[in-house]
Amino acid sequence: MPELHGKDWEKLDGMFRRNFFNSLTGFKSLCLIGTQNAGGKTNLAPFTQVIHIGANPPLTGILFRPHTVQRDTLENILETKAFTLNQVRPEFVHEAHYSAASWEISEFEGTGLQEEYLFGFPAPFVKESHIKWACSLQERLDVQSNGTILIVGLVEHVIVPDAYVGADGFIDLEAAETVTASGLDAYHRTQRLSRLSYPKPGKPPEILP
Amino acid sequence: MPELHGKDWEKLDGMFRRNFFNSLTGFKSLCLIGTQNAGGKTNLAPFTQVIHIGANPPLTGILFRPHTVQRDTLENILETKAFTLNQVRPEFVHEAHYSAASWEISEFEGTGLQEEYLFGFPAPFVKESHIKWACSLQERLDVQSNGTILIVGLVEHVIVPDAYVGADGFIDLEAAETVTASGLDAYHRTQRLSRLSYPKPGKPPEILP
Repeated sequence: MPELHGKDWEKLDGMFRRNFFNSLTGFKSLCLIGTQNAGGKTNLAPFTQVIHIGANPPLTGILFRPHTVQRDTLENILETKAFTLNQVRPEFVHEAHYSAASWEISEFEGTGLQEEYLFGFPAPFVKESHIKWACSLQERLDVQSNGTILIVGLVEHVIVPDAYVGADGFIDLEAAETVTASGLDAYHRTQRLSRLSYPKPGKPPEILP
Repeated sequence: MPELHGKDWEKLDGMFRRNFFNSLTGFKSLCLIGTQNAGGKTNLAPFTQVIHIGANPPLTGILFRPHTVQRDTLENILETKAFTLNQVRPEFVHEAHYSAASWEISEFEGTGLQEEYLFGFPAPFVKESHIKWACSLQERLDVQSNGTILIVGLVEHVIVPDAYVGADGFIDLEAAETVTASGLDAYHRTQRLSRLSYPKPGKPPEILP
């Protein structure tokens, strides 16, 4: 059983270390983030560090790597205060991954994914996505430990097809074919094990219908 | 196609809103966090807001709900600076969910999951987990927008069985049977679609062997 202790990670090859620690934290959300700069040039990029921050008000967080090189998505969000998040399905997971390349042109043009403008919101949505939402920049937090940046967005618009929303508000991501990611380059479908009842001491959880 | 705009979320039923926005951000990591307080009482709780913060140094983040009521895991981390993260497999997903109940006794005792002490680290690991790691408290960030708290931990010890680690450092979470979560109470297995090659403009991604 391989183990790492203390400063062992310093001796690892850089690529090995990135793959290893990016995988270690488990399965991740995969969203395409759509933005444009003040000049109207659009950008699209896949992100897996997407986190639910709160429901009241509805807030979504994205962790960005340190702003030491050009980061179009982050710069566009800081400039225009607007971004969209678009879930990925298997039929365009290759295009989603491809949008991470260093395109000179817009990633929409490069990958063939289609931009869509809705509700007068300034950032582009991805037409191929079934579940998508738009956020305005609400807060920025700088992680001192390594220079990463947590952007908190306030949810302004949401689209989720009726078929995927239960009476209790649960969204059936599996029915929507939402993809999950692991590591830096792996993509997965899911198979539901169960939904479990609200846990109370002395009453083991039951499988919800 | 149901849509939400602007302040529509204010009119939603509270439970509907929690389920909806907890599902919206996609599939999530599921980890059991093990801690103990200064008096040695152990605690175990499932968390899905777990995020990869960095590989160099290796940092793991956890987002906690506002500290307005008793939050044992958060309080223990602030008190002892130590916690473990333990991935969940289908065979103990019920116990993992059950550990979220408001136990008076230790969740280990309540659920039957076994504590394990390794490497002289003060917080308990979960014996049933194959992939697990220990962190020391590195940084705390307070999200002003809603009072949630991002705890950043420095990875001090990691265990991942050999069989799951590729030559390039990629951890095969699927082979390890790591579970992913959605919403507040749903658990899923995964099925890999592919790993894709490093994306470059003009060269569509290829499926890695």
